[in-house]
Amino acid sequence: MMPDELTERVIQGDRRALARVMTLLESDDPKGNATWRAIYPRTGSAYRVGLTGPPGTGKSTLVTQLARRYRRADQTVGIVAVDPTSTLTGGAVLGDRVRMGGLAEDPGVFVRSMASRGQRGGLANHTAAVVDVLDAAGMDCVFLETLGVGQEALDVVGETHTTLLVGAPGQGDEVQAMKAGLLELADILVVNQADRDGASALANAWRWVLKGNGGGGDVIWVPPVIETVATTGQGVDEVVKALKEHRFWLINGKGWDQRAERIAGGRVLGALVEHLLSKVQHDSTDSGLWEELVADVVARRLDPVAAARRLTKKVLDEH
Amino acid sequence: MMPDELTERVIQGDRRALARVMTLLESDDPKGNATWRAIYPRTGSAYRVGLTGPPGTGKSTLVTQLARRYRRADQTVGIVAVDPTSTLTGGAVLGDRVRMGGLAEDPGVFVRSMASRGQRGGLANHTAAVVDVLDAAGMDCVFLETLGVGQEALDVVGETHTTLLVGAPGQGDEVQAMKAGLLELADILVVNQADRDGASALANAWRWVLKGNGGGGDVIWVPPVIETVATTGQGVDEVVKALKEHRFWLINGKGWDQRAERIAGGRVLGALVEHLLSKVQHDSTDSGLWEELVADVVARRLDPVAAARRLTKKVLDEH
Repeated sequence: MMPDELTERVIQGDRRALARVMTLLESDDPKGNATWRAIYPRTGSAYRVGLTGPPGTGKSTLVTQLARRYRRADQTVGIVAVDPTSTLTGGAVLGDRVRMGGLAEDPGVFVRSMASRGQRGGLANHTAAVVDVLDAAGMDCVFLETLGVGQEALDVVGETHTTLLVGAPGQGDEVQAMKAGLLELADILVVNQADRDGASALANAWRWVLKGNGGGGDVIWVPPVIETVATTGQGVDEVVKALKEHRFWLINGKGWDQRAERIAGGRVLGALVEHLLSKVQHDSTDSGLWEELVADVVARRLDPVAAARRLTKKVLDEH
Repeated sequence: MMPDELTERVIQGDRRALARVMTLLESDDPKGNATWRAIYPRTGSAYRVGLTGPPGTGKSTLVTQLARRYRRADQTVGIVAVDPTSTLTGGAVLGDRVRMGGLAEDPGVFVRSMASRGQRGGLANHTAAVVDVLDAAGMDCVFLETLGVGQEALDVVGETHTTLLVGAPGQGDEVQAMKAGLLELADILVVNQADRDGASALANAWRWVLKGNGGGGDVIWVPPVIETVATTGQGVDEVVKALKEHRFWLINGKGWDQRAERIAGGRVLGALVEHLLSKVQHDSTDSGLWEELVADVVARRLDPVAAARRLTKKVLDEH
């Protein structure tokens, strides 16, 4: 397929074209990037929802349940799952995710698992582009699921309109440690596996931490804490309701525009890092300067900042 | 303290100065960066060991045990623990880590817990600088402990001479999913909690995956798989022995220099990203160009790559 044809077919929602461009993006093929740029003007209408939380809290099951309910309301759904445990295997497997939900045969659902990437900033750039592709393909809602530890937990907040934090009782340190900070960034809090001991204690603890955050009048969003059992579907309707309310709240206030700006700013920053790095590294690798400066840093004749400045200066001077 | 005095005292191993410069680095204070650059020429002698693996596998306990054994051999030890669960709380707590090992009173040990940072590349840069500080302070060995999921697992490989992968039985998906890729990047594999069911099965599975990786002659390092019970100390001596052997293997081959180059290259790249971004963003924020271009990207009049190119062009033209 030529890039133009691929772009056209992505916009039409052609599933093979979607899979193709995602593979191109993951493998850093320039055609993937070109297609992403071409479809970018067609993005901006999907509702982007992030789900983040520690491993083993049932995020995938919850996403599947949410997707089913959106489908019942005739909404098309994209799911992007970043699989950080597969970081270094170079690929992620759909596994039980699709089979489980019986969503694989539904043409109104598109699921993509991605391995998180090794490059600096690579994860965010690739993941963001894949979400854009689903947006351009006309998905009404795109769920982005990431492991809520480390860098990925923050990335998801910067990529979405609404962020769900998913916890579960008995996860010990991992859940306990996500204290005030992460809770404050989430828009909706879900205590999954609520049929287990300790679920209401966790929900109450979260409510206690969040108390006082809202309350400043009706324009403030107070993040609800919802208990669910994703495996049986218990409480999932409440999450759907909270998503609707949050979206409504965003659109009726300044939230929607602010988050669209945040998402766009993140995209520009990502593109900027990639562009500048490739420019500087390309120029300096050709001239042997990169190797020379790294050797100087190894020998401690130069510190890394001084080396970075020399690299930058060279590119600027030669412009 | 003036930066010069601070630098001097870091090199002398003054504990208060170490803590001070680490706090400055974490809070992005320019004095921290200046001190890091000043101590950089004094780095390069510490043996840098990374420990990575899923949550709950006992990495902290293992590090404490390793540190004790190094201390018995009269080696000074630095420990840097990146706490990704505290990502968003803005700070990490030493917690039981120090109390547990009874290492807190030992002047030959310096422990620092760090929250991972929100900035793109921020984690790696700050963590790397803190490891450098301990190196410059004369620590014989610096352990860098990170959660082995997502970006952090890769960062640790690029920052150290030797990488230990720590797993445990019964961690299910998380451990299973770290298949070939992550295993192949590790130099030493540890199955901790080896008194639990499934430990030898996991160790055997790892050995099976690694089989055939070495074998090409005596210059190839075949990563050993070691079973430990870090809480009792069982098997820890074997890990110490493997570390010694790996270090010896590195120094006697090309490995040591190659890894020193990789570490230095990562430092330059990190400094480069920071330098270029601050330059472009500073110039374009002053002129209002940044806001203008982000607004264009929000409105889909421009795609992010086109915006990034305009930002770069402006900086180059004005040089």
